[in-house]
Amino acid sequence: MGCHVAVVGATGAVGQEFIRVLEQRRFPCTDITFLASARSAGKPITFGGKQYAIKELGEGSFAGVDLALFSAGASVSRQFAPLAVKAGAVVVDNSSAFRMDPNTPLVVPEVNPEDVRWHKGIIANPNCSTIIMVVPVYPLHRVNSVRRLVASTYQAASGAGYQAMLELERQAREVLDGLPVTRKVFPHQIAFNLFSHNSRIAENGYNEEENKMVNETRKMFHDDRIAITATCVRVPVLRAHSESLNLTFERPMSEAEVREILSRAPGVRIVDDRERNYHPMPLDATGGDDVLVGRIRQDISQPDGRGIDMFISGDQLRKGAALNAVQIAELLIR
Amino acid sequence: MGCHVAVVGATGAVGQEFIRVLEQRRFPCTDITFLASARSAGKPITFGGKQYAIKELGEGSFAGVDLALFSAGASVSRQFAPLAVKAGAVVVDNSSAFRMDPNTPLVVPEVNPEDVRWHKGIIANPNCSTIIMVVPVYPLHRVNSVRRLVASTYQAASGAGYQAMLELERQAREVLDGLPVTRKVFPHQIAFNLFSHNSRIAENGYNEEENKMVNETRKMFHDDRIAITATCVRVPVLRAHSESLNLTFERPMSEAEVREILSRAPGVRIVDDRERNYHPMPLDATGGDDVLVGRIRQDISQPDGRGIDMFISGDQLRKGAALNAVQIAELLIR
Repeated sequence: MGCHVAVVGATGAVGQEFIRVLEQRRFPCTDITFLASARSAGKPITFGGKQYAIKELGEGSFAGVDLALFSAGASVSRQFAPLAVKAGAVVVDNSSAFRMDPNTPLVVPEVNPEDVRWHKGIIANPNCSTIIMVVPVYPLHRVNSVRRLVASTYQAASGAGYQAMLELERQAREVLDGLPVTRKVFPHQIAFNLFSHNSRIAENGYNEEENKMVNETRKMFHDDRIAITATCVRVPVLRAHSESLNLTFERPMSEAEVREILSRAPGVRIVDDRERNYHPMPLDATGGDDVLVGRIRQDISQPDGRGIDMFISGDQLRKGAALNAVQIAELLIR
Repeated sequence: MGCHVAVVGATGAVGQEFIRVLEQRRFPCTDITFLASARSAGKPITFGGKQYAIKELGEGSFAGVDLALFSAGASVSRQFAPLAVKAGAVVVDNSSAFRMDPNTPLVVPEVNPEDVRWHKGIIANPNCSTIIMVVPVYPLHRVNSVRRLVASTYQAASGAGYQAMLELERQAREVLDGLPVTRKVFPHQIAFNLFSHNSRIAENGYNEEENKMVNETRKMFHDDRIAITATCVRVPVLRAHSESLNLTFERPMSEAEVREILSRAPGVRIVDDRERNYHPMPLDATGGDDVLVGRIRQDISQPDGRGIDMFISGDQLRKGAALNAVQIAELLIR
């Protein structure tokens, strides 16, 4: 069994990663169409050893398409995903457009694969920071409910797209060469600096990224009781996100139990060598599929034994975006 | 009134900052002696428009010295601080050697200035991450006791010394030029990467930096009930530390009350513009005296209103080290 796949936003950082992930996982494509804006139309893309030309995204782009992987921003998804569905495709959407829509499942295959079943044409891929967090948190939550979670993120430039990664490199060189630092993508200098996540701050004082981590986690866990606070920060790293997580469980939870559960959790790799002081690093997470988990320890600020601290890193472009979307597609064709 | 000051570790990153801070604050020196290892002896230092030659630190270095500012590591402090005291000097020690000694006061002037009174010759300067945290936390704690604090740090290279700052710059250039990345100071690549703080991990699973934040805060607050957990992370920033703080107070604490208290707290500057998404950044904290505080918001994970989140940045070499030590010295001569 195979299908005709369309990649929408093929030239972006996530779009490019879609291509690599589909190739590496030998996704059963019978045909593939690469779609992007008019600006990129005609440009060549190599996939599976064959050359393709990028086509301009338009209303008629989805004829014959079975599966459309969208990663071109929320407004493109809002406009074109319903057209793709009307043309008979199933959409896996990497944007925020449909994530909190009650009629759209939001899925991380390691967490709630069963939710793909009730889709009505669109399945939403969660926010990158949320995905990377829930992969190690959910297996613990299944055994002993997480009652409260305090997250602080260390987010890479890639989350703001390919141009943001280039901006980090360009600015780093400008700083090293003593030149004036130029800004095009981020509101503040990212090289040798960091700043509160560049998304709009909502009524409740949280920025959009933080509210996504709270709301999307609850939706996927089907548990509105889990209390979450997050502080999202952009750091001068190219493409993997890290997160410092402080968890409070319903019942006491030992460090040993956490290690035991995570050692057999899908999509998780424990990197926690106290002797060598070797723990998750974005550089080690880059290009890999697993979320790295380390610094697992009993939280000394919760003497009732219900607290656990950990530090995680995961590739924002892979598990945080393209890989998770392709895994959703694999669930669909299974 | 003036005094003869000795700066021990004059060539280090903190030592160099001592010189700038003493000059800028017109510290009343009648004489000044710069001490360092044999390797640096004879090198020139300009201070207050005059040239000085660095002298080699030795047993007889403290004759006639009234105030000795130490920043040459814990083993140098352990060996030479008692000799300086014996010679009649008061020592302000930036190392960890005496911080938890019950006979040595540990002081941040905005927190516990009264503790300088009972010194027995040595006053300890706290760890940089601790100082930067307690400056905004203590004024809140005085009004409404902090019961629990979850801290995640974003620590600059400067905390590991001047060579570490050079390593970050050198590695950044190596990465940009596609060259192999060389390591001399840090155990892992710091450029475009981050890692769990490079201090030894203790029995309880926390690294030394994290345990310092817990224990030193309790000592200065004279409050062992305050429950603290910290995750310390080194990031590719040159010289200011940032921290994501989640606080739980004894009683409900409103965002407005926090702003009101911090707006008149010494050593604190509120940088919290939600409209422009402008918040504390290490680049803005660099070279300044204040701890910048922003992202002040009610913690939505604590529906009883007892939780506050905030994000702070402070210059590690100034308030985190040299400035705080000189402020202690100013308390002494007052």
